[in-house]
Amino acid sequence: MTHLLIESDANPRVKRWKRLAADARFLRREGALLIEGIHLAEVVLEHPDVKVSAVILSAGRSTNEAAGLADKLASAKGAKVYVLSDRLYDGISPVENGVGIMCEVAIPQAPADEAWTHQDALYLDGVQDSGNAGTLIRSAAAAGVRVVITSPGAACLWTPKVLRAGMGAHFSVMIIEGCPVRQLRERYAGRLLAADARGGENLFLAPDYTAQGPVCWMMGAEGPGLSDEALAATDERYWIPIAEGVESLNVAAAAAVCLFDSSRRRLLRGVEP
Amino acid sequence: MTHLLIESDANPRVKRWKRLAADARFLRREGALLIEGIHLAEVVLEHPDVKVSAVILSAGRSTNEAAGLADKLASAKGAKVYVLSDRLYDGISPVENGVGIMCEVAIPQAPADEAWTHQDALYLDGVQDSGNAGTLIRSAAAAGVRVVITSPGAACLWTPKVLRAGMGAHFSVMIIEGCPVRQLRERYAGRLLAADARGGENLFLAPDYTAQGPVCWMMGAEGPGLSDEALAATDERYWIPIAEGVESLNVAAAAAVCLFDSSRRRLLRGVEP
Repeated sequence: MTHLLIESDANPRVKRWKRLAADARFLRREGALLIEGIHLAEVVLEHPDVKVSAVILSAGRSTNEAAGLADKLASAKGAKVYVLSDRLYDGISPVENGVGIMCEVAIPQAPADEAWTHQDALYLDGVQDSGNAGTLIRSAAAAGVRVVITSPGAACLWTPKVLRAGMGAHFSVMIIEGCPVRQLRERYAGRLLAADARGGENLFLAPDYTAQGPVCWMMGAEGPGLSDEALAATDERYWIPIAEGVESLNVAAAAAVCLFDSSRRRLLRGVEP
Repeated sequence: MTHLLIESDANPRVKRWKRLAADARFLRREGALLIEGIHLAEVVLEHPDVKVSAVILSAGRSTNEAAGLADKLASAKGAKVYVLSDRLYDGISPVENGVGIMCEVAIPQAPADEAWTHQDALYLDGVQDSGNAGTLIRSAAAAGVRVVITSPGAACLWTPKVLRAGMGAHFSVMIIEGCPVRQLRERYAGRLLAADARGGENLFLAPDYTAQGPVCWMMGAEGPGLSDEALAATDERYWIPIAEGVESLNVAAAAAVCLFDSSRRRLLRGVEP
C-alpha cells in the first residue's frame, strides 16, 4: 500500500484538514468532514454508502491497528493514505494522545423528502452544545429513530466534537440540517410533539401517542427551551414530570426520556424498535 | 459592604483558589469547592445549609447582578467579598467571558447512614466523564432521587466542570463519594439494580420493580460498563431495549431512561416524585 508522506505546513491538504477540524462553515461548504479514532473509522468502513477520500496517519503515533484499518479503507473505499509528521498531525487532531488515525469523509447528502417525511424523527430547535447534539443523535439511533433534523440556529452536526459524542450514530441516521420549523411543518407527514419543561400533558400519564403514525420529537436548547415558533407548530405538548424545586433536565437526558417513552409504547404494542 | 481588593499573584488566597479550580485531590483535602456564575450562586444562597466563605468578583467584569448577589451572600452567609484584578480572576475562572462571580463553598458533609440507606439512590461505578457526572446528578434530582453515590474510581463530583453540568442539583441531593461496591451492598437497605447494555431483563417489559421499597440504580462508565464486582452485587439486571446495530447509549442518557422509568412506575402507583 502506497503511503504519501507530508512534512510541510505549507501543504494544501494539511491546511484544508486544519480548517475542516475547526471551521463548521468551511466544512459545510466543502461537503467534507474529519473523523478521528479507531471506532469511527470502523463505523465508516462498515457503511458501504459512506465515501472516504483520505486516511491520515501519524508517523510516530499511529498504532498497528490504525495502520491496518487504513489499508482496509484504502482497498474498500479507494481512500488515499497520508502519513503526517507528528507535529502536523497534532495540529489537526482535536484529540490529545489519540491512536493516530483520522479520515476525510464526504458529508452524506440530505435525503429526498420521500425518504424521511413518513418516519419517526427528532428535531433539534436551536440546540447549540456539541456534546449534547452528538448524544442526541446517538439516543435517536438507539431508540430506532432514523431521522435527525436541525433548525437553522442549531449546532452543525458534522464537527469533530459532535461526531465524537455521536459515537458513529451519525452514519445510522438521515441528517437534515438547517430546516426551519415552517418547512418541517409543511413537509413532515407525521405529528410534531413538543417536549417542554414549562408545561403540557404529563408524558407518563398521556394516552398512547405513537399509535397513529410517525411522530417527531422537538427539543429546544438548554435555557430557552423550544422557540415560540416551534411551540406554535406542534400538534401536542408534553411535560416530563420532575421533582419540585428542580428546574429542568439536560436536553440530552430529556430527549432520551421522550424517545424511549415512544420506544416503550411501541414495544408494548408489539412493534420492534 | 467592604470589598477586599487583591491584585497580586503572590496572594495566598489566589493560589488556593487556583488549586481548588484545578486539583480534585486538593479540593477534597480542603473540603472546599469553587462555583462560578449567577445561577449556582443563587442556588447556594437559597440553600440555608450550604456554607459560603468567600465571594470572588472581577474588578472589570462583574455585572451589577453579580455584585448584588455578592452583597446578599455576605449578609446571609457571612461570606467575605474579594475583588480581583481581571487577570487574576481569569487565572482562576474556568469559564471564558463569565459574568464575574465565583464563590468558595464548603463541600457538604457526607450524610450519616440512616439518612440515605433507606432511600432511592443512584450509584456511579467508575464514571469518569465530568459532563456526564454532572448531568447524572441533575437527572437524579429531577427524578426525585436524592442520593448519589460514587465508586472510588469515579470522577470527583465537586469540580467546576461537574458543578456546571449539574446546574445546582448538587445541593438538592446527598452525595457520598468513594464508596466501594461491597460497602454499598452492606449498608444499603434497598435493592441494587444494574443497568447493563450487555443483557438483562427488558426494562420496559419487566414487572414493577419499584413496589417493594427503595432501589439504587447502578450505572457504569462509557465503554467498560458496570464492573464485574458491581454486576455480582446487584439484585436485578435490566437492559434498555435498543435498536439493532447500535452498541449502547451514553451513560447519562441511559440513566435518564432508567431513573424516569422508576419515576413513571411510581407515578402510575400514585406516588409523587
